[in-house]
Amino acid sequence: MMISLVLVESALQLVPESIRGHPQIKRFAAKRGKDPGEVLLDRTFHHSSMISLARAGYPIEKMGRPDIVHNALLQVLETPLNWEGFLQVFVHTQDDYVISVNSKIRLPKNYIRFVGLIEQLFDQRRVPSDGGSLLEMRKSTLPQLIKKVIPDRIVGFSIIGKPEFLRVVTESVCRFKRPMVFIGAFPKGHFTDQTQQLADEMYRIDREGLDSSIVAGRFVYDCEACLGVVNNRIRIRGAQDE
Amino acid sequence: MMISLVLVESALQLVPESIRGHPQIKRFAAKRGKDPGEVLLDRTFHHSSMISLARAGYPIEKMGRPDIVHNALLQVLETPLNWEGFLQVFVHTQDDYVISVNSKIRLPKNYIRFVGLIEQLFDQRRVPSDGGSLLEMRKSTLPQLIKKVIPDRIVGFSIIGKPEFLRVVTESVCRFKRPMVFIGAFPKGHFTDQTQQLADEMYRIDREGLDSSIVAGRFVYDCEACLGVVNNRIRIRGAQDE
Repeated sequence: MMISLVLVESALQLVPESIRGHPQIKRFAAKRGKDPGEVLLDRTFHHSSMISLARAGYPIEKMGRPDIVHNALLQVLETPLNWEGFLQVFVHTQDDYVISVNSKIRLPKNYIRFVGLIEQLFDQRRVPSDGGSLLEMRKSTLPQLIKKVIPDRIVGFSIIGKPEFLRVVTESVCRFKRPMVFIGAFPKGHFTDQTQQLADEMYRIDREGLDSSIVAGRFVYDCEACLGVVNNRIRIRGAQDE
Repeated sequence: MMISLVLVESALQLVPESIRGHPQIKRFAAKRGKDPGEVLLDRTFHHSSMISLARAGYPIEKMGRPDIVHNALLQVLETPLNWEGFLQVFVHTQDDYVISVNSKIRLPKNYIRFVGLIEQLFDQRRVPSDGGSLLEMRKSTLPQLIKKVIPDRIVGFSIIGKPEFLRVVTESVCRFKRPMVFIGAFPKGHFTDQTQQLADEMYRIDREGLDSSIVAGRFVYDCEACLGVVNNRIRIRGAQDE
């Protein structure tokens, strides 16, 4: 049993070429001793330069939020499910890169360090660059990732999906051997039609949209319950000892 | 029913006076246009100056991690449990301040913005400073907070507590009317003896210590299950319609 959790259409991208000459971007990059093409797009710092991106037709309301990926990864990697080897985590980005996350990674908890690490990854395609890499990045579409992983079920979470309790969805997912789960890692909007067509089912788990990190964390926790992961990790008097 | 979730002994503090003259701190504060006494202590940026704190007897392995509070708050505030009014969140700090978090707050997702907000809070004791404040900070010990909230049950999570499934702990907590839960918001070490003595029970929910944000997020999710929160938020064919 191996669950592939994919952060899909993630708002994780380098500053697009067309705004690398923008004064705000140039100042920001210079301050960090980097080239404008080497820094991650971040709404918090690049809001005004992103407006010209919008004019050029970019879907900026979905872009420039590395914090979403960071927080979602923190909720899934340091968990019993991952420690016990049931989880395979991928980050698919809006520019069609796929990052494979080694389950042994200890991701920086600090956001600034995380951003630095991802910028290094965009530059070198693997970190650490020598030996067993903990993060690896390849140009890859979602269909290409699916072709590689060969999941036997693909389920996505989306506010436009079928209403269902997350726990019920997870139970159905855990009946498969190599299920794959799509969780959007962008601030607003929906999966593209293309992405939606890849999923066997799409579910809505609350009236409101929930943050990616919350959906991801809850899904992982429910998987642990379904698979009885914690039962083997703590001894509870009156449970196993009876 | 109102659950008080308290982040306890949080590693959220201004740079202590004794190292405000340290070159690293002075540089860091100047870069941000602040006085050294106005910036939050952050291990990522102040590691070398914290070594002199250790020499002065400070428990530095527990200090200087605003990211822990930030991530834990993100996991509890943007949830159905909070939206439905079952949750009251407090942040108790190692220097005995207590921050009351208004459940209506939309916390900055970006870490840098969060740090700026908390620095403003340390300075002005409420933000926004005019009108209905979303964060309020008072000098207060944990016993003083308890005296104010008057919980009918206090449960803490700690690696040195009694082993139990989180779900079982949460079910027992939800039988009370005004339960209070302690979640440590520091990177290493344990609750002080004083804190431990305030809790009716302390539970260990995994073999390994889990991040505060993960414990907090899972507890909130389990509360939603116990209280049937989501049942009223989505319509599921075959469930309510039957």
